[in-house]
Amino acid sequence: MTSPLVIAVDCSTTAAKAIVVDADGKVVGTGTRALETRSPAPHWFEQDGSQWWTATDTAIRNALNEIPDPRAVAAVCVTHQRESFVCLDEGGTPIRPAILWMDGRAASEVRTYGTERVELLSGKPADITPGLYKLLWLRDREPDTMARCRRIADVHSYLVHAMTGRWISSTASVDPLALIDQTTGDYSDELLELAGLQRRQLPDLVPSGASLGPLRPEIADDWRVSRDVVVIAGTGDGQAAGIGLNVTDPGAAYLVLGTAVVIGSETLSYVPARAYRSMISAMPGQSTVETFSSSGTYLSTWFRQEFGDPELAGAPDPRLEREAAALPAGAEKLITLPYWNAAQTPHWDGQASGVTLGWQGCHTRAHFYRSLLEGIALELRLQLDGLEGARGGRVEVIRAMGGGARSPLWTQILADVFDRPLEVCASGEVSALGAAAIALTAIGAHDTLPAAASAVNRTDTVVTPHPDAAATYRQMRSVYERVYAQTRDLLHTLHDLPLNDEKRGER
Amino acid sequence: MTSPLVIAVDCSTTAAKAIVVDADGKVVGTGTRALETRSPAPHWFEQDGSQWWTATDTAIRNALNEIPDPRAVAAVCVTHQRESFVCLDEGGTPIRPAILWMDGRAASEVRTYGTERVELLSGKPADITPGLYKLLWLRDREPDTMARCRRIADVHSYLVHAMTGRWISSTASVDPLALIDQTTGDYSDELLELAGLQRRQLPDLVPSGASLGPLRPEIADDWRVSRDVVVIAGTGDGQAAGIGLNVTDPGAAYLVLGTAVVIGSETLSYVPARAYRSMISAMPGQSTVETFSSSGTYLSTWFRQEFGDPELAGAPDPRLEREAAALPAGAEKLITLPYWNAAQTPHWDGQASGVTLGWQGCHTRAHFYRSLLEGIALELRLQLDGLEGARGGRVEVIRAMGGGARSPLWTQILADVFDRPLEVCASGEVSALGAAAIALTAIGAHDTLPAAASAVNRTDTVVTPHPDAAATYRQMRSVYERVYAQTRDLLHTLHDLPLNDEKRGER
Repeated sequence: MTSPLVIAVDCSTTAAKAIVVDADGKVVGTGTRALETRSPAPHWFEQDGSQWWTATDTAIRNALNEIPDPRAVAAVCVTHQRESFVCLDEGGTPIRPAILWMDGRAASEVRTYGTERVELLSGKPADITPGLYKLLWLRDREPDTMARCRRIADVHSYLVHAMTGRWISSTASVDPLALIDQTTGDYSDELLELAGLQRRQLPDLVPSGASLGPLRPEIADDWRVSRDVVVIAGTGDGQAAGIGLNVTDPGAAYLVLGTAVVIGSETLSYVPARAYRSMISAMPGQSTVETFSSSGTYLSTWFRQEFGDPELAGAPDPRLEREAAALPAGAEKLITLPYWNAAQTPHWDGQASGVTLGWQGCHTRAHFYRSLLEGIALELRLQLDGLEGARGGRVEVIRAMGGGARSPLWTQILADVFDRPLEVCASGEVSALGAAAIALTAIGAHDTLPAAASAVNRTDTVVTPHPDAAATYRQMRSVYERVYAQTRDLLHTLHDLPLNDEKRGER
Repeated sequence: MTSPLVIAVDCSTTAAKAIVVDADGKVVGTGTRALETRSPAPHWFEQDGSQWWTATDTAIRNALNEIPDPRAVAAVCVTHQRESFVCLDEGGTPIRPAILWMDGRAASEVRTYGTERVELLSGKPADITPGLYKLLWLRDREPDTMARCRRIADVHSYLVHAMTGRWISSTASVDPLALIDQTTGDYSDELLELAGLQRRQLPDLVPSGASLGPLRPEIADDWRVSRDVVVIAGTGDGQAAGIGLNVTDPGAAYLVLGTAVVIGSETLSYVPARAYRSMISAMPGQSTVETFSSSGTYLSTWFRQEFGDPELAGAPDPRLEREAAALPAGAEKLITLPYWNAAQTPHWDGQASGVTLGWQGCHTRAHFYRSLLEGIALELRLQLDGLEGARGGRVEVIRAMGGGARSPLWTQILADVFDRPLEVCASGEVSALGAAAIALTAIGAHDTLPAAASAVNRTDTVVTPHPDAAATYRQMRSVYERVYAQTRDLLHTLHDLPLNDEKRGER
């Protein structure tokens, strides 16, 4: 291993995952600690904010146990689940459970406060995810909490405070709360006022890669690392995944194939558009732009749970993958709008639902499965086209990660639908590697963040589009892109039918 | 058993089925002989016409073997698959295989010759089923066949000729060839001319219930029945099912829940409409009107084959039925347009395909299954409303038969969607019982055909609509009825996409 080493942590929704990385980008130690999520009401998702630290601490200790000399560590950098936040009292103790990014309690606040002006300032289409709407929910529904709340901490700010004792964070990490003016890169007085917050309740802001000072000595001693170890300002897990996949300019895009799916790329300045959400980038002066759809591997898992081999309980099914792969592109004209969890980018339609169109007697179980995977790919292509159209500039290469990237069937469909090479990184902690690249740049192990990103990026395989399949999907897209427009009002009518209301209430 | 007895035969697509029935409508003997169907090209379906007789002869012998005294038999009456016909030479021998009702070879003839005028004269929406379009196919594609053809025989005419030696048939039986003017009840010179046929090539016509003369003595002797046994003019299997279900006036309807589904009722005179096909009724002066959809138990079997317990190989699955029955009416807003085999009544759209709309993460395999059954029911309700609207007069009671009638889940859905009581006859040879009723009336065992129909009709159970479910389906119908109109052009575009044509050619 090549000194110096850095510790990178991805404190995600499900677990804190720590890696120790050498100067060449090689992972030399790993540690993990699960996080517990509670759902006290339908669509509510909460965590105990103090677990963010206890899990991170444990994961780091486990990772350090795997290397011979913890004193070779020079820095630590955190990436994390975004938009989630916790309310703290004077002493830094959580007043109530943290509210997570996927918590849907603030739907009515989104409708009331998600104006064009708010979207323009924050750079984020009105949606349940940004922290702002949940802060408004707390303001109106839990005034006692807000009266006692001295600090609002996203995951990064909370962990930095725990590690350094300082109330400071990276702009990119705080940004998903939707309180930062995308043009100035500073808190927006207008958004703070809307949320009823004071600047002093929020951390000071520095760019990703800046030093936030040394570890508290007792922590450094506890981890058996040098007291000179500095904490480096990180960024959210999406942006960090982009860096881990070596996406640092507008010519490349990252594709996260998780439960939800995301396409991200860069813009050289803030370019407002509803075609994506804009976030402060770890690349100075740039914006990271991301599309989002909540039906990713969620949908393929749903299919396998409902229609797959019961013994596999939703796990990948080699026979199903094989049968679907043997079918021609286009699933013999079965086309699916994958809005099982409503529609996000670009329609942002909470009343939308899924549609399968073109059923014929020749279709089999494998056709339906393939059609779902193709539907997600067609939706992603729609999002990519929208992203390119809004910001200008073609994405030449797409780099994919996440559980879905382990399916050769799906990655081939994606390469064919995008009609672009797909570089697949199906293994490793990509977001944590992105945080490691930030830390390695900060300590001078690489001259620039792009150089560090290139060093940590690992490509398992490159999937090349098949021209015939790409031509088929061009035709399918011409139909796909009309399905939502033509069924939208039907889906809304269906959504609003007052059927079986008492039964749904019992769920 | 109450003398006299009659023999009734249903010479259907799959088998000749004979029953011996006493004057009270009780079945006292049964016999069956399978028929072989060949498909020499995609969408072509043929049988050896001479098998119609050999199978019927065997089935009758088997049925007669079950009764103590064949000499108690007074009459024989035939019902049969409709629209199927065979071309005969001078001596009554088939020139080529018979072409069946579901044979689709004449699709282009349907488009070319299926004018409003032809529809009005024949009473039948242009479609692949009526014999006319296949006769036109033969005229244009097999001129040698037509040059040698002395007689065109539907199943009834062929069997009557075999039993009596006479070239005579029932108007109701010949009618599905679409050569009969619905207003006059006689051959239409205009339709004969279009088909290039002479009257002498077709049998003389008499009403259902008329005597066609005695059996040929050698057949009577062979069967060990009296030489006085008369052959009574029957009708097609759909109309005969109506009689077997005691549907002899406009206030009732029969519902055939087979591979395809049919709703039939009566009109007191010919009322032209595209909402149904009109046929000469066995009830004097009346028309039998029928809607048709080719996705009946075809669709539930498809589902169970693709998504069901593999060990059941598509057979009814008690667990699936139970799970679907436990769901609320409306399948939690999952709605299906059941056009897996294109659309028939009322849209007659060969380019249509199926649509499932409203998918949400809460939906399970059982939701999809229930949604299919509900979709077929909603389509049938649309057809029933169209039928009532076109002819006037409400159907008060619906009587169901066929394989689908054995599903308590589906019959409840149907009663709820129709919002009318559903009398279910899930057992017995309903069409053959209809033919028996015609024969019993002809020999004076009952005063009228309605009296005989009432005597032979058996109701296994009556399913009553649930008011809450009926209200839910009223709401679902308001959405359902818009789905086809709003997706029609999408389905057509999809149908016309030139995808994978070479692959499909290989199938």
